[in-house]
Formats: sequence, structure tokens, C-alpha cells
Amino acid sequence: MKFVPNVQQLKALPAALGVDAVVAMSPENFAYVSGVFILTVSLVRPRQAYVVIPAKGDPVVVICSIEKTLAEAEGWIKDIRTYTEFADNPIDALTGALKDLGLGSGKLGIDLDFLPVSSQLRLLANLPCLTLANSTEAIAKIRAIKTPDEVAFLEKTTKQTHKAVLDAMAASKLGDNELAMANRIATGIINNGADGTLFIVFASGERTAHAHAHATERVPKASEIIRFDVGGTYGAWASDFARTYSTGSPTNLQSETYANLAEIEKATIEMVKPGVIAEDVFFFCRDQFLRRGMPFHMPHIGHSFGIELHESPMLRPGDKTVLKAGMVLNVEPMATDGEGSYYHLEDLFVVTDSGPRILTHGLPPKEIPVIGQKITY
Amino acid sequence: MKFVPNVQQLKALPAALGVDAVVAMSPENFAYVSGVFILTVSLVRPRQAYVVIPAKGDPVVVICSIEKTLAEAEGWIKDIRTYTEFADNPIDALTGALKDLGLGSGKLGIDLDFLPVSSQLRLLANLPCLTLANSTEAIAKIRAIKTPDEVAFLEKTTKQTHKAVLDAMAASKLGDNELAMANRIATGIINNGADGTLFIVFASGERTAHAHAHATERVPKASEIIRFDVGGTYGAWASDFARTYSTGSPTNLQSETYANLAEIEKATIEMVKPGVIAEDVFFFCRDQFLRRGMPFHMPHIGHSFGIELHESPMLRPGDKTVLKAGMVLNVEPMATDGEGSYYHLEDLFVVTDSGPRILTHGLPPKEIPVIGQKITY
Repeated sequence: MKFVPNVQQLKALPAALGVDAVVAMSPENFAYVSGVFILTVSLVRPRQAYVVIPAKGDPVVVICSIEKTLAEAEGWIKDIRTYTEFADNPIDALTGALKDLGLGSGKLGIDLDFLPVSSQLRLLANLPCLTLANSTEAIAKIRAIKTPDEVAFLEKTTKQTHKAVLDAMAASKLGDNELAMANRIATGIINNGADGTLFIVFASGERTAHAHAHATERVPKASEIIRFDVGGTYGAWASDFARTYSTGSPTNLQSETYANLAEIEKATIEMVKPGVIAEDVFFFCRDQFLRRGMPFHMPHIGHSFGIELHESPMLRPGDKTVLKAGMVLNVEPMATDGEGSYYHLEDLFVVTDSGPRILTHGLPPKEIPVIGQKITY
Repeated sequence: MKFVPNVQQLKALPAALGVDAVVAMSPENFAYVSGVFILTVSLVRPRQAYVVIPAKGDPVVVICSIEKTLAEAEGWIKDIRTYTEFADNPIDALTGALKDLGLGSGKLGIDLDFLPVSSQLRLLANLPCLTLANSTEAIAKIRAIKTPDEVAFLEKTTKQTHKAVLDAMAASKLGDNELAMANRIATGIINNGADGTLFIVFASGERTAHAHAHATERVPKASEIIRFDVGGTYGAWASDFARTYSTGSPTNLQSETYANLAEIEKATIEMVKPGVIAEDVFFFCRDQFLRRGMPFHMPHIGHSFGIELHESPMLRPGDKTVLKAGMVLNVEPMATDGEGSYYHLEDLFVVTDSGPRILTHGLPPKEIPVIGQKITY
């Protein structure tokens, strides 16, 4: 999508952080701030890209020359400077832009949670009077409140992914191997609108215990659990969606574990509203497990979502972020039945003044769904 | 695939670099050295993972606790230590492992081309007597010589991707939009063996001028150029493959530009053998363009390939690496016809003592292929 971020907040950032300029250069911060999705910024790590946001004046993009036409076509920033890969070092090109802007000394906010040490060393060798502060989290805080366009786009992508899953699992049957089912989901995600897959975690039976297993040729047996966690890519944005199915004839323990998890997910999402603290959603969810006598070992139970798989805030102990309208979050509790199988459910929603609004087609069925079953919303 | 790297070379690395230990921690170096592909090491950047290779003694893996079962199932390193996400900082877990190994002071090789500045600051705050050296490139040099298992695996993945492309383009016809054709390739890559897509660059007509365009709803017209550059993911490894097609009735200029490019690609690959310098392959390729009076603007004309999209060595000016048997390389020249269309061809091959051995099904047709046409090898 054609995307313009909250420019006013970004331009106010240097003053808010007490720096002379902010440089957005992690792949996610660059994509968000520039509105330009350059595939190779993440795929070819040395091909760094920067947006310089000075305290005074207009922002400047510094990118590899071969990406200039894309930046002109997609971005909102007019001042685009380029470097020639290998002939010029990207950090030297950034240095040149900073000097031109009168920012060769003084204080710079930059993504220290991403900037590699070797790049920092070169920047400080070029500009020894520069001091660096970490602005990763400050940009993440701006990104956390989605623009209306972003919410609409994430609703579209998550509904497309959910539909791909519903169709794929309705088409699956006992006797199919994991790969056949996982490929149905992956290809469905693409045919429903994604430009690629971000990840396809898929496992059955005892393999559900691996946190992030890939599908294999294993053929799930009757009365087994299938769980998957999948996402597509949509330019800079993505989808992230998890479900748990039975291969048929679930045991009582399986039915009960699933039903409990579905209740827990629903209750946890429903307690989210503006003003709630991120970690309190975690504690609420944990309590839901414990009051049902279910083991609980998750380090987090959900996260903000958009460009990065896990954005800030995280629904985890220690994250004191006050949730606000416009945040888009996943809640994704995971349970085990104590017999080696793991269950996972995950839905995306936007926080609104009147509470959470689900962005998938709907929360999971209350009773464990069975492969081959058609689920309608 | 189950993968064990060249352990002997890795264990000799600390002594070769004059350090007390080497820590592999970029996503690609971790995956290669550990033999464990953990999806979230690249997708969730704070979830860092490390292999510590001490000068004396056995290597140690430090990973997030939820990935332990995967590391036990896939990896060759027995000593696996874990941290709990958010409760422990990964760098503190690495610090603990280094102390246990008697490496709390002294000199450490680590991936300074990846290690974020904020992680370095925490490591040095924990261990103020530690000094850090950059070992990114030293591990890349080991990775550059593929093991026989790796060559076999890359041959399998590139042939699967090539087959997906041949089938998708044979099934495409005038009237299809870019998305329909690109999705045929993407889903074919998955159905032929990939666990996902790495990237699907696809453009027609004037859009071929963007370096990395995504498919749109544009319907290519007759006598237009289609070019794409695509790759699938196969655990830690990938594929990377480019072709150019005509939509039918190519102009003389289009036929000539393509035929020249196919000749250039073939000649460039054929000049590769052990002992050739990486940059000389670039200069040879450039000469092929210039002697045909074709414009040449590429910063590189190919690259080593395996886990990263662009590995070291790069076929570019300034890369003085001596090519050796066992290296797996892509040659990927790009041409323009001067009327706004860009042409791209890319094939993977392994360097052997007797010259290059092509790992795709074969080099591109000498005459520009047309969509809907069945190409056999």
C-alpha cells in the first residue's frame, strides 16, 4: 500500500529526544518512516538505507542507487540521495548527508538496537565529534499507534490469511501428510493476496512440542493434534495467525484443553481496552491458566503487530506500556495437554475506545475443529 | 537437511584469528555453525542465539529456552544453554556462558557486522576486560566452501525452483496479469519443495526498470518484456533464480538484447575456475557488455550463495578472493534495451577442479522464450 506515516510526530522526535536529528535505519523503521519497502534492506544486510529527520528542515533518504526509482515512486520524501554499492560505503553516504545538513557534530538518535558495531565504528571515525543515542524504541512507540490506513490494511491481510487457512484445512483429510496441509495454507496465503510467506510453522502429534517446527512428511494419525502458526508478507507488512485442529475423534482431554484455551484467548482479548497496562494483560492471561489448573510457561502471551513480527509493546511481565486506541495486537496463548501435544490460538485485533475489535474473520470455534470441517463466519 | 559444518576448521578459527574464542551470532553464522535453523533468530531480532567456539574445549550453544527441543533434535553441539525470554537478557546468558568457560576477559571474535551497538554495550558493561574483534568475514570464508551435502542440497533446491518457474511460465498466457503469473511461480516453488518464499520480484514492461518490483494487477501487453528474480526458503538455505521472457512477438531489439545477455551469462560462467580472482569475473563480464556496445551499470554481476542471499565472495570490483573448488556462485547479468525494459538472467553453479558445474536444469534458452512456451532440458 502507499503509506505515509505520522509525519508530524516524526518531525517532532529530535526535539523530544533532545538530539539534533534522528536516523531511522533498521529495516522496519526505514520502511515505516520512508513509506518505501525495499526488499533488499533486510535481505542484503550491507545494503543499508537511512532516513535522516533533522530537528529543523526536511527529511532526507539515503539509499543504494539501484533502489532510487522505487523510492521516487512509493515514498513521500523528496530529497533522495544515493550511493553506489561497493564503490561507496553506505555509512560514508550517510556521513555526507549529515555534513550537508550541518549535522556533522552534535547528537544523533539512531537505531542502536540494529546498527552493527562495525557501521558505528566507521560513522564515528568519519565524524569523531558525533555522539549517538538510541532512538529505536522512540520510533517503535510511534509505530505502535497504527494509522487508519494501516489498520485497514492489517485487517485486509489478516482476513486474507484467515480465509486461506479455513479453505486449506477444510480441504485437508486424514491421510494427508503435514507438508500437503502446510503447502495448502502457504499457497492459499499467496493466492489470497500475500506477495510471499513470512513463516509457516506446522506440526502434528508430538512434533507440536517444538516451538517453531516446519512441516515434514509425517502423516498425522487419528485423534492427533495439529497446530500451526503462519504469516504472509504484504510489502513491508505481514500477517500472523495460529490455529489448532484435531485430525478427528478428539479425546476428552484434547477437547477440554482446546476449549479451555479458546475461552482463555477470548477472555484475554476482551479485557484489553485503552488504559490497561501491557503486562497486566499477561498476568490476566496467566491467571486464566492457573485457575483452570493448566500449566503456564509462556514468556509473553501476545504482542503489537504490523511490520515486525514482534513489535513494541509486548504483552509480557515488565512491559509497562499503557495500551491506547489504535494499537494493533495479537493475543496468542499456548497450552499443553500433558500428553505431549501443544495447542495454540492467535487472533489480531485493534484497540478502540469501546474495546477490542477483532480483525480476523472471528475468534476460533469454541470446540476443537476437525480437519475437513468447513467453518463459516 | 541435517547439517554438520566443517567442525575442524571452525575449531581452528580462534587460534587462526588470535582470539580466545569466536562467537557466531548473526542469523546466518549461527545457523551454519550450529546446524540448527531457528526461524525466530532472524524474525524476532531480540531473540539472539550464539555458538561459542573456544580455542580449547567444546563449543557451547546459548539460545532462547523455547527453542531447546529443536536444537537438541537438529544440532551437533551437545552443550546447550538457554535463557528465558524477557526474564533474562540474551547478552547476560552469553556473559554467563563465557564466564563458565573462563572467557570473561581476553579477546573474543564476534560478528561485529551484525552485533547491534546496544548488545555490545551490555556485553562490555558485563565484562569490562573483554576486547572484541570482528570474525564475521572469517566465518563467511569457511561458509564459502560448501560441504558436499550443501552442494547436493543447493542443487536440489535450485532445480526445484527452476522447475516451478518452467511450469509456471508454460502455464501463463497473454491476458494474465503480473500477479497471476508471479503467484504461479511462488506457489510452484512451495509445491516443489520449499517451505516458503524468500522473495518474488516480478515486473513487466516499463516496471522492469525497478530493481526489485513486486507483481501488480498490470496486464502485460504483446511484445513486452517480463523479468523476474525469485527464491524459496529451505530451512536455513534458499534458492535464487532469474529469467526473462517475452509476452510474444518480440521486437528485433528485444530478441537481440536477450540473445546478447544469454551469451554474456554463458561466457562469464564458463570463465570461472579455481584460481580465478572474484573481481576478474566482474571485469570479464563487463568487457562482454562493452564489446557488444551495451551499457553496463551493475555494481556486481554475481555472488556466492547458500544461506544468505549475497554471501562472500561477491563478483565485484575490489573483491580479491581467489575462487576455489566447492564454492557455489550465481552469475546474474542484467541488460537494458534502451527503450525502458530490463533483462535479467541468473543461474547457480558450483566451482569444480574441471570448471563450473551448472546446478539449475540448464542455462537459459539462447533465444528469448515466450510465455506459454514449454521449455525442456
